[in-house]
Amino acid sequence: MSETETKRGRRTGGRERRDPNAKPTGPAYIKRVIPTYDIMGEESLLKIEATADRILAEVGLDIRDDDEALALFKKSGAKVDGMRVRFEPGHLQEVLKTAPQEFTQHARNPARSVQIGGNSVVFSPAYGSPFVMDLDRGRRYGTLEDFQNFIKLAYNCPWLHHSGGTVCEPTDVPVNKRHLDMVYAHMRYSDKAYMGSITSEQRAEDSIEMSRLLFGADFVDRNCVILGNVNVNSPLLWDGTMTKSARAYARANQAAVIVPFILGGAMGPVTNAGAIAQAHAETLVGCAMTQLERPGAPVIYGNFLSSMSLRSGSPTFGTPEPAIGSMVVGQLARRLKLPLRCAGSFTTSKLPDGQAMQESVMSMLSAVHCGANFILHSAGFLDGLLSMSYEKFMMDADFCGALHSYLGGVVVDDNTLAMGAFQSVTPGGHYLGSDHTMANYTTAFFDSNIADNTPFEAWNEAGKTDAATRANKRWKASLAEYVAPPLDEAVDESIRDFVARKKASMTDQWY
Amino acid sequence: MSETETKRGRRTGGRERRDPNAKPTGPAYIKRVIPTYDIMGEESLLKIEATADRILAEVGLDIRDDDEALALFKKSGAKVDGMRVRFEPGHLQEVLKTAPQEFTQHARNPARSVQIGGNSVVFSPAYGSPFVMDLDRGRRYGTLEDFQNFIKLAYNCPWLHHSGGTVCEPTDVPVNKRHLDMVYAHMRYSDKAYMGSITSEQRAEDSIEMSRLLFGADFVDRNCVILGNVNVNSPLLWDGTMTKSARAYARANQAAVIVPFILGGAMGPVTNAGAIAQAHAETLVGCAMTQLERPGAPVIYGNFLSSMSLRSGSPTFGTPEPAIGSMVVGQLARRLKLPLRCAGSFTTSKLPDGQAMQESVMSMLSAVHCGANFILHSAGFLDGLLSMSYEKFMMDADFCGALHSYLGGVVVDDNTLAMGAFQSVTPGGHYLGSDHTMANYTTAFFDSNIADNTPFEAWNEAGKTDAATRANKRWKASLAEYVAPPLDEAVDESIRDFVARKKASMTDQWY
Repeated sequence: MSETETKRGRRTGGRERRDPNAKPTGPAYIKRVIPTYDIMGEESLLKIEATADRILAEVGLDIRDDDEALALFKKSGAKVDGMRVRFEPGHLQEVLKTAPQEFTQHARNPARSVQIGGNSVVFSPAYGSPFVMDLDRGRRYGTLEDFQNFIKLAYNCPWLHHSGGTVCEPTDVPVNKRHLDMVYAHMRYSDKAYMGSITSEQRAEDSIEMSRLLFGADFVDRNCVILGNVNVNSPLLWDGTMTKSARAYARANQAAVIVPFILGGAMGPVTNAGAIAQAHAETLVGCAMTQLERPGAPVIYGNFLSSMSLRSGSPTFGTPEPAIGSMVVGQLARRLKLPLRCAGSFTTSKLPDGQAMQESVMSMLSAVHCGANFILHSAGFLDGLLSMSYEKFMMDADFCGALHSYLGGVVVDDNTLAMGAFQSVTPGGHYLGSDHTMANYTTAFFDSNIADNTPFEAWNEAGKTDAATRANKRWKASLAEYVAPPLDEAVDESIRDFVARKKASMTDQWY
Repeated sequence: MSETETKRGRRTGGRERRDPNAKPTGPAYIKRVIPTYDIMGEESLLKIEATADRILAEVGLDIRDDDEALALFKKSGAKVDGMRVRFEPGHLQEVLKTAPQEFTQHARNPARSVQIGGNSVVFSPAYGSPFVMDLDRGRRYGTLEDFQNFIKLAYNCPWLHHSGGTVCEPTDVPVNKRHLDMVYAHMRYSDKAYMGSITSEQRAEDSIEMSRLLFGADFVDRNCVILGNVNVNSPLLWDGTMTKSARAYARANQAAVIVPFILGGAMGPVTNAGAIAQAHAETLVGCAMTQLERPGAPVIYGNFLSSMSLRSGSPTFGTPEPAIGSMVVGQLARRLKLPLRCAGSFTTSKLPDGQAMQESVMSMLSAVHCGANFILHSAGFLDGLLSMSYEKFMMDADFCGALHSYLGGVVVDDNTLAMGAFQSVTPGGHYLGSDHTMANYTTAFFDSNIADNTPFEAWNEAGKTDAATRANKRWKASLAEYVAPPLDEAVDESIRDFVARKKASMTDQWY
């Protein structure tokens, strides 16, 4: 992480050959100035931690199909009984002391490297939808072209700091080859940091190997350049596919993101406190496993809470209970001194409408308030995580822009206090033309490119558009003006050669 | 405010003759369990307070056309020079020590009386739009029928605690008679607490006099039953119409809400810290004036911050800078130990679309996070405060429902920690049918009546509705099922007689 770290044998000094003023022009990530929103007192936090400890000691957790993970835990002193693992209170917290509190994920353009932990905030696109949507064509299965499009849109967007991972499933590519095309697309069409595959240990290793070709093997061994987002098979079950992928990332000194997946009332208790305790227990196990695999490897404490409809049992998103529960999860992660991942803009709406944005803003604000450092799903989701919407992507991304201002808080200094302006403008007068306004107006307020703030009459004459219609124009314009960031030709060729050889060695699998 | 206070000569014991289980069924108000979100440290708060003090001492504030207010301030020790008033630092804070930290606003149905101050939160409809909108008829001037409709919708809504004030302008009624029809409509069509007129001293006094007929003069002299929302003519100018109305409320021991109206860059500095300092100065003067008029009268510290478009100079709402600025205003109000009013769901969108809900949720969450006790404009606004939308009203009201759960925080006890459930469900098992889920599921999650959480296919077959279309059905259904709360016939007649006599004494004014 040092500024003088060598990269592919050359000294980069932390700065890049590329023009740092090239598009996109946003900051590499946000330094949150406002404090986190800590809603729970010490006594209740201790009760939740004690419940997690009791779950781990009395019930334990199953690890299925990963004998090496079981052996690692046994060696560390856990009680292993078949695939069931139980832990003495405090054991995992002790193991986790080697995990870094904060780390840099390097991008191939160093100006876009992101800091993960502390008070940094990184916005990353939504992840994992099989479907895509737009206003023109409705819902359909995602393709590699859609995948590349979302990478291009994220690259162009000044408010998204990260290229993401499976921004949508490219369902026109065989399942066993998708990871190669996906990781390559992140490398080729963006210069922001990205995520790799976790759907098998081999695919995780391929993703990391491709990163070695891009960044150099030595650099990758000493620095984080790729994240892998691994889910617990909640409740209290870790599937071997996931533990092996998580260990592959840790082994390579890359960051696994450890995420329980609890729909309250289905994969965990319907009550928030219990769901949080369970999530904490599951995350502790996953994070500790990375440290047993390679002490000091970066790892991210992940949060995913959800609710369900009382009438249908359907999962619901962007609802108040997960939003407030996330604040507590944030407190628990900070007490462990681990970087935190939260989910951003969740909704069950099937359109980029009022419901979509109501739920998404509720969910996204809870993520930033709870102190999340890496916010996955910051832009694009509709349809209960099943669809990636082009319009919603632009609307969410615009809201990410608004959050840049919001997280900067209220600056208090002689200029912002404006005493001189009060002395020069008479009571009842006007500040529009005042020197203070002229000196500050361009930086004072976030300028949305989706919101329509014009008077009713102007809006009416201009075609009565809604936000979704304006967003439809925005994504088309953004794709039309996309210019790929330069990529060293030899490096590009070496990665493409790797992909071609890998693909040639495989038989297509479609499920 | 005592439980045994007599009301219209009868002992009510704080409970009502009406069936407390009658519709609506929501709580009278919210007791916020989560803490406020305090984003600013002591040093910066002191700087803002010091700037407000300097504004008041060095620049001062004009009070136009109200010699009595000037005399009150002069008598209290302020420096009065023509209509300019200047205050020594600390002077107004000292005057404000007689203001109650918390008070009850009584509703005619005591089960719906609201507490204002402390950790109570009261949601009240939007206020002041000349236009109304719905999906069927578009935008048009509001009428008395619209006004009555919004009162009925607020009455039926379990999540709105208050009937509001000028829920829309009934433009088919002469300007000088509107207040009579508006206050009567609140009394007749709802039994929730309400607001009165402030557009002239006489109209304020008429509103209070009608309340005396409803509650009894003795009761009104000793208890708050009506609020008047008075605006500063920012920057640093109090118009006599407003100060006289505010004093009329205070004189009758009723609560004035003192609200600066600062569009940053127009009526105050474009920088948040300066706008907040100015607002604080203006509010201090207005609140202190009520205490000079009648020490101990209830008064509410009001907050209204806004931003503007850099491109057009148009006001913008629901943007990040006012949202984060409101947190600081909340801290300042609490340091003065005054109840706080904030604005709720603001937006410049002309449709109940994604922009509308994105901006509204941002704004509404800032109001609840900053600790506002009385949240005006909780439901209905579109079009930059100019239009009251029937659909948006239902969507916002539904979000108010979500906030009931959110403000309750995360309950930590043996039941919610669910240790028994963990011991009975095997790892990898399912909680849907578990005893713990069955015992808790009906109260676990807020159940929206606008959101569509069904799978895509079901939504597609059911007509692909958006949230606004569903809200359109909801308001029509709510009006169709409306039943007026009972009102004592003699009381009703006395109020109608007052209105008729007042109207007969006036010549219609239309502007």
